[in-house]
Amino acid sequence: MIRPGSDIEGFFNPESVAVVGASRSGTKLGNVPIANMRRFGYGGRVYPIHQGAGEIMGLRAYPSMSAVREKIDVAVAVIPRERIVGFVDECASSNVRRVIVTAAGFADSGGDGARLQEELRQTAAGRGVRLVGPNSVGTISTESGFVTSLLTLDRIKPGGISIVAQTGLFAAGYARWLGSSQQFGLARVACLGNKADVEEVEVLEYLGSDPLTRVVAMYTEGVRDGRRLLEVVRTITPEKPVVVLKGGRTEEGVAAAGSHTGSMAGSGSIYAGAMAQAGATWAGSVNELFDIAKTFEYCPLPAGPGVGVVSVTGAGCVLAADACGGSSLRMPGLKEAALRLARAGLPEWAVMGNPADIWPAVETKGMAAAYDSVARAMAEQEGIDTLMAVVTVVPEAEFDAAGVLGGLKEDYPGKPVMACLMGASDPDERRWRVSLEEAGIPVFGSVERGVRAASALAGYAEWRRKHEKCLKRV
Amino acid sequence: MIRPGSDIEGFFNPESVAVVGASRSGTKLGNVPIANMRRFGYGGRVYPIHQGAGEIMGLRAYPSMSAVREKIDVAVAVIPRERIVGFVDECASSNVRRVIVTAAGFADSGGDGARLQEELRQTAAGRGVRLVGPNSVGTISTESGFVTSLLTLDRIKPGGISIVAQTGLFAAGYARWLGSSQQFGLARVACLGNKADVEEVEVLEYLGSDPLTRVVAMYTEGVRDGRRLLEVVRTITPEKPVVVLKGGRTEEGVAAAGSHTGSMAGSGSIYAGAMAQAGATWAGSVNELFDIAKTFEYCPLPAGPGVGVVSVTGAGCVLAADACGGSSLRMPGLKEAALRLARAGLPEWAVMGNPADIWPAVETKGMAAAYDSVARAMAEQEGIDTLMAVVTVVPEAEFDAAGVLGGLKEDYPGKPVMACLMGASDPDERRWRVSLEEAGIPVFGSVERGVRAASALAGYAEWRRKHEKCLKRV
Repeated sequence: MIRPGSDIEGFFNPESVAVVGASRSGTKLGNVPIANMRRFGYGGRVYPIHQGAGEIMGLRAYPSMSAVREKIDVAVAVIPRERIVGFVDECASSNVRRVIVTAAGFADSGGDGARLQEELRQTAAGRGVRLVGPNSVGTISTESGFVTSLLTLDRIKPGGISIVAQTGLFAAGYARWLGSSQQFGLARVACLGNKADVEEVEVLEYLGSDPLTRVVAMYTEGVRDGRRLLEVVRTITPEKPVVVLKGGRTEEGVAAAGSHTGSMAGSGSIYAGAMAQAGATWAGSVNELFDIAKTFEYCPLPAGPGVGVVSVTGAGCVLAADACGGSSLRMPGLKEAALRLARAGLPEWAVMGNPADIWPAVETKGMAAAYDSVARAMAEQEGIDTLMAVVTVVPEAEFDAAGVLGGLKEDYPGKPVMACLMGASDPDERRWRVSLEEAGIPVFGSVERGVRAASALAGYAEWRRKHEKCLKRV
Repeated sequence: MIRPGSDIEGFFNPESVAVVGASRSGTKLGNVPIANMRRFGYGGRVYPIHQGAGEIMGLRAYPSMSAVREKIDVAVAVIPRERIVGFVDECASSNVRRVIVTAAGFADSGGDGARLQEELRQTAAGRGVRLVGPNSVGTISTESGFVTSLLTLDRIKPGGISIVAQTGLFAAGYARWLGSSQQFGLARVACLGNKADVEEVEVLEYLGSDPLTRVVAMYTEGVRDGRRLLEVVRTITPEKPVVVLKGGRTEEGVAAAGSHTGSMAGSGSIYAGAMAQAGATWAGSVNELFDIAKTFEYCPLPAGPGVGVVSVTGAGCVLAADACGGSSLRMPGLKEAALRLARAGLPEWAVMGNPADIWPAVETKGMAAAYDSVARAMAEQEGIDTLMAVVTVVPEAEFDAAGVLGGLKEDYPGKPVMACLMGASDPDERRWRVSLEEAGIPVFGSVERGVRAASALAGYAEWRRKHEKCLKRV
């Protein structure tokens, strides 16, 4: 038997992998993981398994796993469901202790499929083989370059966010989106599919102790042992944030999740409450999951719930204030010292406060200096813990936002600095987002999304403080 | 005195306009409205007013308005605040009865500014001049090409959505965004600024009777007479949807809205309740305002709250079901007849329902036929009133979605057809959105946003049915 920890490690960082289901012509789905590993620079050994042997994508192919005669850490099976049980048997016989099964048509399709999955589970358990899947789209590990996704992926930046998800979406569509359209990087992604064996709990345990993982994002529709899940979350959250999107939060969602769901399904609010007590951060949508995860990745934890908002439009101020008012954040008024700093060089009639409509300062000093001076005045005030710039993206308002906000981040390393864009055209939105996120400033497509993420950050920071105080008392 | 209706008409569709504040070198802010009107093909007469007369942008300039000696329907004043009161006097003397005032530094900046605004208001009222502003970014009318926005705008498609907003954002950043990045068109936009005279109520009245306006979208931070606003909304909603985003919904938002806010500010929930009773649709953010407005523009009103969801991923199904579960929508199960249609040609083990995970159908029939056949099976069932396709945008899933969903829309003209995208890269997102919206299918960046818009549509349809039943009873 292998230790539990190393069981999972081998799904992300194996020294060798066998791939079954690739063809010599290179056109089969099984060729995709091999191509992905090559593109991501996987340094381990790759053994294509093919009845006809020969060469596959320039690699020597083997007619069977036993023919390899070297240690195989993990096998990726891209073959039809009918052959899977036999394949797991073969793995065990060849001392291959881990398998990623991509085929669908198991518990995801009820009846016969469910029976087949139970047979698969028993075979694997009986012969000491650990399974990811069936119905898994694969795993991603940016550091090792071990990428078994069935979707052709461009390189994804290494980073501190790891994702564990039941659905293949995250090793497929969203991984592609991350690689092509986002600036933040990933450490690990595991798409667990039907979870006949490995489920969220073990992967979370692994990610908790994984030095590359700084933020854990999870999509789950329910687990077999909810109590155990909470225990594991509770061991991670004192060190790292865990952001959870629960599929099946409403009666309709639970019904749609169908046979996948485990014991904690159907109790969305209980689940949410228990998770919050365990220090997890709750996300209400996929966008929110990524918004919050990237905020954790880019920002320090704030010292409190106070936010300072700087906007070049009055509506930006009002909408940000509305969003804050509906959240756990606070918008402290500016004190004498901050007011003096913020008003320096402004006309008499200019109103200044928090949120700060900086238009008068823009007219006097220009866009960059206006954002900079007012945001710095706020940053100097104790109790303003997070700085949020609301930017209306029009050519007339162009300024070196990455320089200004990046400088602020550098000079106030304990305060999260965030940016919300309003009214940006598609290309402008992308250009601003890329330059700001490269400077470490998370960008949001609306003030509401920015405030939601800031609130999640402050909420987790508060939980950590309470938790640490509690530990000291003991 | 002019009739109230024609007062407002002249701000959107005047036969002649004087622009003050343009320079002969063409570099002043006052040149922007002239350039915009040219670009939008304004057919009325444009009189640049300039002390030195001569030519401005190829147009004959006049030293004063009285020098024009022809009727001027409206004047656009792009001059500093100190000169505004005198300018309104001059307008009255020259029989110019409408002025758009762009200068800021009035009530938006407290103290002195508020006094100056009151003086301006009294002068205008005393001399029979109607004012839009001060602090207005201008108006847009795509049909007449009368575009006085201070921001250089590309042409915006004519369409049925009209926007009345306190903030300049909508004639500035968002108008640019609409022109460059969105497919739906606009009829009128009015950015009212500080609302010293003309406010939402009158513009709403005008839009209610404007044949070009099919959907009204409003951003307001509060009006002088809330009761009157509700009365006007109530006269429009039996004919056209009115979507409202209220700035100042929370205590913090009200404080930020500051001196702008009127009698209904500070009572977000009362406001929402009264607006809902009057048949208005409530939006929680700018994104939601546009999501809902475009849905009204693209879709018929559904016959009921039933939604059918078709998704190529299980997670898409679960998330859509969760969102529906949290809304006023319903997801009726598929009846025998629909099930038979949806399952035609599928393998035995394939599960089918609502939401429909169509992966098994994709494997058998390909992407386009799978979406098409299952969505049509749903459309045939009474009680499934809206059809929602959840699409995971990856190259492997490319299909002629505009053709499939456009065909569905054509064959079921009474049922809204909508699309939600998941995991799309920036360029893919844009490409899919453009092609689908050109086929009249509104596109949403997440299932949650799509469900929210579908729910707003169904909610308004329900209000209309109740309202009509009530009328019949009387």
